[in-house]
Amino acid sequence: MSIPMDEEAARRVIERLNFRHEVNGEPLVVAVAQDADEGKVLMVAYANEEAVFKTLTTGKAHYWSTSREEVWCKGETSGHVQRVKEVRVDCDADAILYLVRQEGGACHKGYRTCFYRRVSPDGDLEIVEEKVFDPESVYGSKLENR
Amino acid sequence: MSIPMDEEAARRVIERLNFRHEVNGEPLVVAVAQDADEGKVLMVAYANEEAVFKTLTTGKAHYWSTSREEVWCKGETSGHVQRVKEVRVDCDADAILYLVRQEGGACHKGYRTCFYRRVSPDGDLEIVEEKVFDPESVYGSKLENR
Repeated sequence: MSIPMDEEAARRVIERLNFRHEVNGEPLVVAVAQDADEGKVLMVAYANEEAVFKTLTTGKAHYWSTSREEVWCKGETSGHVQRVKEVRVDCDADAILYLVRQEGGACHKGYRTCFYRRVSPDGDLEIVEEKVFDPESVYGSKLENR
Repeated sequence: MSIPMDEEAARRVIERLNFRHEVNGEPLVVAVAQDADEGKVLMVAYANEEAVFKTLTTGKAHYWSTSREEVWCKGETSGHVQRVKEVRVDCDADAILYLVRQEGGACHKGYRTCFYRRVSPDGDLEIVEEKVFDPESVYGSKLENR
């Protein structure tokens, strides 16, 4: 098991990444979460240095919120944490893949994956996943969307 | 089979997307390609309106190159096209997932997936995939990296 890892090793990983995506001046990599068991792509977000560092050292997926401009731990509101089993890095080192065990659902709409809609032949977006939790009971009236 | 689809249906899809990512003024969605059979995440890139339109109407994955600032058809140089079987859209409609049949390999380094490196316990990036083609023989001396 390589994750969680110690801080020195996490810093070595970060040195190898290319945080070339930038939103409001924050250097970022694209972060994709994939279910380690089922293989479903769960969500896509950004991660800055601190988010990657926290992911690697805690074993829980962290991301950078471009709207709130802060690092967030996935599941901190909902309990639907992502325990990271493996991290992959792409050829340009500007995208990372978290292979995770997902508690509950990744999507704030109540689905296992954020990609719960499929493009239909006539150009509609049809829901093709089942809800795994009730968003209202998990997030209540919080405006925060994760 | 919903893809390829006609132009009117493709335009309906595009109207539903939120091209909120911006690189050098170009409005973009994040596009993730996943192997429709094996489930491997193959690559991450951006797509603008034209790239999504061409993907939906031709059935071959197109992306936006932020370096060359043009739409490119994956495999136009290498022959390693991605035939899109299904397109998923995420909850924010700012990321799309192409489920594809990948000819050869997605990565210009010769691997099936661009995510061919795994973070090791000591913070190294170790290669954990086999090469499926020789990049030199496919791309030759072209500087273009796809």
